Amino acid sequence: MRKTLIIGCGGVASVTIHKCCQNSEIFEEIMIASRTKSKCDKLKAKLEGTTKTIIHTAQVDADNVKELVALMKDFQPEVVLNLALPYQDLKIMDACLEVGCHYIDTANYEPEDTAKFEYSWQWAYREKFEQAGLTAILGCGFDPGVTGVFSAYALKHEFDEINYIDILDCNGGDHGYPFATNFNPEINIREVSANGSYWENGHWVETKPMEIKREYDFAQVGKKDMYLLHHEELESLGLNIPGIKRIRFFMTFGESYLTHLKCLENVGMTSIEPIEYEGKQIIPLQFLKAVLPDPASLGPRTIGKTNIGCIFQGKKDGQDKTYYLYNVCDHQECYKEVGSQAVSYTTGVPAMIGTMLLLQGKWKKPGVYNVEEFNPDPFMEALNKWGLPWIEDHNPVLVD
Amino acid sequence: MRKTLIIGCGGVASVTIHKCCQNSEIFEEIMIASRTKSKCDKLKAKLEGTTKTIIHTAQVDADNVKELVALMKDFQPEVVLNLALPYQDLKIMDACLEVGCHYIDTANYEPEDTAKFEYSWQWAYREKFEQAGLTAILGCGFDPGVTGVFSAYALKHEFDEINYIDILDCNGGDHGYPFATNFNPEINIREVSANGSYWENGHWVETKPMEIKREYDFAQVGKKDMYLLHHEELESLGLNIPGIKRIRFFMTFGESYLTHLKCLENVGMTSIEPIEYEGKQIIPLQFLKAVLPDPASLGPRTIGKTNIGCIFQGKKDGQDKTYYLYNVCDHQECYKEVGSQAVSYTTGVPAMIGTMLLLQGKWKKPGVYNVEEFNPDPFMEALNKWGLPWIEDHNPVLVD
Repeated sequence: MRKTLIIGCGGVASVTIHKCCQNSEIFEEIMIASRTKSKCDKLKAKLEGTTKTIIHTAQVDADNVKELVALMKDFQPEVVLNLALPYQDLKIMDACLEVGCHYIDTANYEPEDTAKFEYSWQWAYREKFEQAGLTAILGCGFDPGVTGVFSAYALKHEFDEINYIDILDCNGGDHGYPFATNFNPEINIREVSANGSYWENGHWVETKPMEIKREYDFAQVGKKDMYLLHHEELESLGLNIPGIKRIRFFMTFGESYLTHLKCLENVGMTSIEPIEYEGKQIIPLQFLKAVLPDPASLGPRTIGKTNIGCIFQGKKDGQDKTYYLYNVCDHQECYKEVGSQAVSYTTGVPAMIGTMLLLQGKWKKPGVYNVEEFNPDPFMEALNKWGLPWIEDHNPVLVD
Repeated sequence: MRKTLIIGCGGVASVTIHKCCQNSEIFEEIMIASRTKSKCDKLKAKLEGTTKTIIHTAQVDADNVKELVALMKDFQPEVVLNLALPYQDLKIMDACLEVGCHYIDTANYEPEDTAKFEYSWQWAYREKFEQAGLTAILGCGFDPGVTGVFSAYALKHEFDEINYIDILDCNGGDHGYPFATNFNPEINIREVSANGSYWENGHWVETKPMEIKREYDFAQVGKKDMYLLHHEELESLGLNIPGIKRIRFFMTFGESYLTHLKCLENVGMTSIEPIEYEGKQIIPLQFLKAVLPDPASLGPRTIGKTNIGCIFQGKKDGQDKTYYLYNVCDHQECYKEVGSQAVSYTTGVPAMIGTMLLLQGKWKKPGVYNVEEFNPDPFMEALNKWGLPWIEDHNPVLVD
């Protein structure tokens, strides 16, 4: 029996596990492990009877390598799919090396106390994974993840050389609340209040938070304001796409969302410095999280679509060429299928696909790799099959 | 020795007590009583040596009539100046009646659980005070307070009949924070999120919160946006100014202030419904108060001026006439003089003046009265003497 250990049981993990259970030929036996076992048990109870996949659950503290090792030794998985917090990536990689499991995740490691996104920590594991004959696949969600696969696919089939990539992440969903965050608000808020940056001519160009704003007319969604953010795939694509001159990442935010966020920041409600309240130390951001709608509660009420993709500019047969690859995903359809809206869906499905390709041996080579370093074709085929079909546009509107 | 009991020791009380101590001929002996005796002791320590006024302090729970009565019986004050919370007015009036003390306050009673401002509860005490031969003066701050005195003065000296009054309360101060409230944020927020209303032709006209907005160019401050609010003096002036057709109250708010307030309301941070947080029931608005700058800390850093006054329109000798009476108060000068900025100063000084006039017998008549029911002349004189000089404008710009 092929065994997969999935660590984490939040919104994304729930989608991935639903999809694994739709794909029992590959995911014959899975173990769901998280800090709160009752969440895993609840999901197991929901899925059992609908799938041939055998589901186990366990409690694990992903910060504790010993606990992780004990769990892996007991369950003996081929691969560990890490859907826990980004703070825990290195601990889980350590445990994989100790036990001898392949590794895959969706978001790069960051230290808990600094909002610093970079691959250096995980890339430092290359030799260890190589020597152990193990594969580690980094950042296999949508962005990073599918955006890297799109880039590899474009390079393989459409271009001789790609010079410019603009990654456009649009969420045209409406949950009906004046303000709510689609996933952990802490991570949302960190992302928006950090400096932006893009990759140009071999180095980073830094911007102030939300300094660069563009409007774009997204297919099936319409016109949205989008802002240049730093995003982790810029770092790996900058190295892995030969001939690249510039890569940028844009994400849409509504004016109201940004105003709320700014006001909350101004009054100190997004601070992670604890304050004394009635004899208790309380972190304002944590209290804000408790006041805001639970991201998990947004699923049933979110309508509209996401549109995420990459606009490529480069050369083919000596000619300038542009090419846009994107996916459109409907919040309500996702919710009907797996009980989560499109933001979780678009991350959770690629995580299942990457794990599948690793188990099938199609994406397996000793070392630590980003997704664009593998053959994109089986992944592109799987996207169409497993709920994230892609659309090509050979004449897209470009971003200034 | 003439004795005055002052209940409360917040920002306004601190100003009033400073001014009483500048006026030791009238305020020979005072007792400062509040829930937290250490605050009273601190103020006493600051003032002793600078004044001939004898200062006592005491702990009292102003919600507890028995405690209040015991304190009054012990100290034997002539008058009780209530600068505690508006929720406590009736308890303090009950105690005054029981012991036989005159009463004066700055804000009308409101039940703690509803944002309902009206005089009915206190006016119901008229007969009791009359029969006891005691005077109760209601609402003797700036607005209500000086605005009523201005109205009585205008009626006495400038008009045969006043038809329209617009009360304009402008705070042109800047504390340098993106958002902070000048006094208890809970009361600030209640005021702004309540429906507005004005008095017209003998009845109330209700508006949505902040529905009516005007720009006005305030002397010594400049152009500010102001919004129509309900305010308690509209109720008493509507009854006490014969011939009145309309009274409105406008207060200035900056756009940024209102945006912050709206966002905080939208996310639930101004709610008074407790939420469960780490096993503790926490009221979001109370937690917000703890995160925001302490209003008392704004004093040293607030610059700029307030401009509060009344624009009257009516008839004199058969002719139409307009008349504007206002005071301009400088935040930094107030802070230098009494350690509080102008918002507390403009309320605290009139409270001292009203109490003085009561002690002098100039504003003494058995019953319950609003300030406009007394002779305005000695009060107007005292305003000039005690730090709130007024300015007349016989040709003001009117509000639409």
